[in-house]
Amino acid sequence: MDIKNLLIASSDEAWEKYLPHISIDCVVFGFHDASLKVLLTRLKGENDWLLPGGYVGKGEELKEAAIRILEQRTGAKDIYLQQFEVFDGLNRTSAFFEEYPEGLWHKIRFIAVGFYALVDFTHVIPVADAFSSDCEWQDVNNLPGMLMDHRAILDKALITLRRELNYKPIGLSLLPEEFTMPELQSLYEIILGRKLNRGNFYRKMIAYGILIKLNHSRTGGAHKAPNLYKFDVEKYNEALKGGFKESW
Amino acid sequence: MDIKNLLIASSDEAWEKYLPHISIDCVVFGFHDASLKVLLTRLKGENDWLLPGGYVGKGEELKEAAIRILEQRTGAKDIYLQQFEVFDGLNRTSAFFEEYPEGLWHKIRFIAVGFYALVDFTHVIPVADAFSSDCEWQDVNNLPGMLMDHRAILDKALITLRRELNYKPIGLSLLPEEFTMPELQSLYEIILGRKLNRGNFYRKMIAYGILIKLNHSRTGGAHKAPNLYKFDVEKYNEALKGGFKESW
Repeated sequence: MDIKNLLIASSDEAWEKYLPHISIDCVVFGFHDASLKVLLTRLKGENDWLLPGGYVGKGEELKEAAIRILEQRTGAKDIYLQQFEVFDGLNRTSAFFEEYPEGLWHKIRFIAVGFYALVDFTHVIPVADAFSSDCEWQDVNNLPGMLMDHRAILDKALITLRRELNYKPIGLSLLPEEFTMPELQSLYEIILGRKLNRGNFYRKMIAYGILIKLNHSRTGGAHKAPNLYKFDVEKYNEALKGGFKESW
Repeated sequence: MDIKNLLIASSDEAWEKYLPHISIDCVVFGFHDASLKVLLTRLKGENDWLLPGGYVGKGEELKEAAIRILEQRTGAKDIYLQQFEVFDGLNRTSAFFEEYPEGLWHKIRFIAVGFYALVDFTHVIPVADAFSSDCEWQDVNNLPGMLMDHRAILDKALITLRRELNYKPIGLSLLPEEFTMPELQSLYEIILGRKLNRGNFYRKMIAYGILIKLNHSRTGGAHKAPNLYKFDVEKYNEALKGGFKESW
């Protein structure tokens, strides 16, 4: 069954199960080594890509819905999703459904609640669902064409992720347990999309008070290896909850 | 007409005019001198207070709706509102409407999109609307009882306002054009709800690069008056858009 008929067939059930006018879109960023990706899906028969998204059950809370949608659309489980913004715009999705019959669930106005997460992409094997031909990690710096306002939603999620660096620590589940300062700097640079001054970065990181300098370094190689660090997990988690000590 | 009948009378019109399941609540903070307040309303016959709120017209964008609602509920115009979070919880509002007839608009599940702003409270004269007995600026440190989850929404808005201090400047429309460093510090302390170290505050503010030190001070008084500053409006606005230079 082609995508148009799949959607038409699902419309009655959607009217029964879901809250009209509210949708959810998930922006799941993935980091590994020096690469930042985002998890996208593609509807059968379409060229352009979408953020994994869906609707909210009548008895389901938003956060629950986001977690369920992500798992159903991509196979990704146990992802810590946070809402970041609500997207509106009277015709944000309707142009796509112009040739569909009146009364179709998908044709009504939807405001989209955006959720985002940052994970290690090697920990998630994407699996396309019944409506999709593909579900893949795509390079944030080389994104394919995207439908509706999904690119704008993605861009906003990235801005939010970058802003959070000002008051929350990052890296605990993304770097190896022991890492060098250049490796930590590379994580920040990849997220920010720009190079940082090494001295300033070192000073800011030390000032955050969440790192423990180790007494050993990685062996091998003719040159003196850079110092190894690990996160002070207790201080990291405190900063995650209450912000850095030197932030406001 | 008492509030119960007012609401019942408005229900049919609401079903016709508004998008079901979406509501808006506005958290308008007001600063002046050394005081932080928030704009609250009280329904006729109620003891507890509410955030000014309402619904979204079928042809109306969220932001437009928030501005209209604020003006209709409180008289406040030209307030720069920003959305900050969506509030859910299956029974967040229904308990209040338990004794109302089935089919009443207000009884259905609503997710609330929270908008907030920070203004000078002397610039806004609150005016209660037809449903309300009162509309007043209330002290954030001495809040009255509030209905439903409106206190939780207010608390989240305050957290958001505080977090923003880490990457956005504040004060341009809240302080006199020329001000002292202690006056600027007092604004931050009032918002953060705690005292700050004078030396650290001074250093951070200078590092932000948005202040111009003036060559004169306020006259009068036996002691040397503190230096006067003003905002470098161009740098302030750049930081407002793109964040501080030393932030990520």
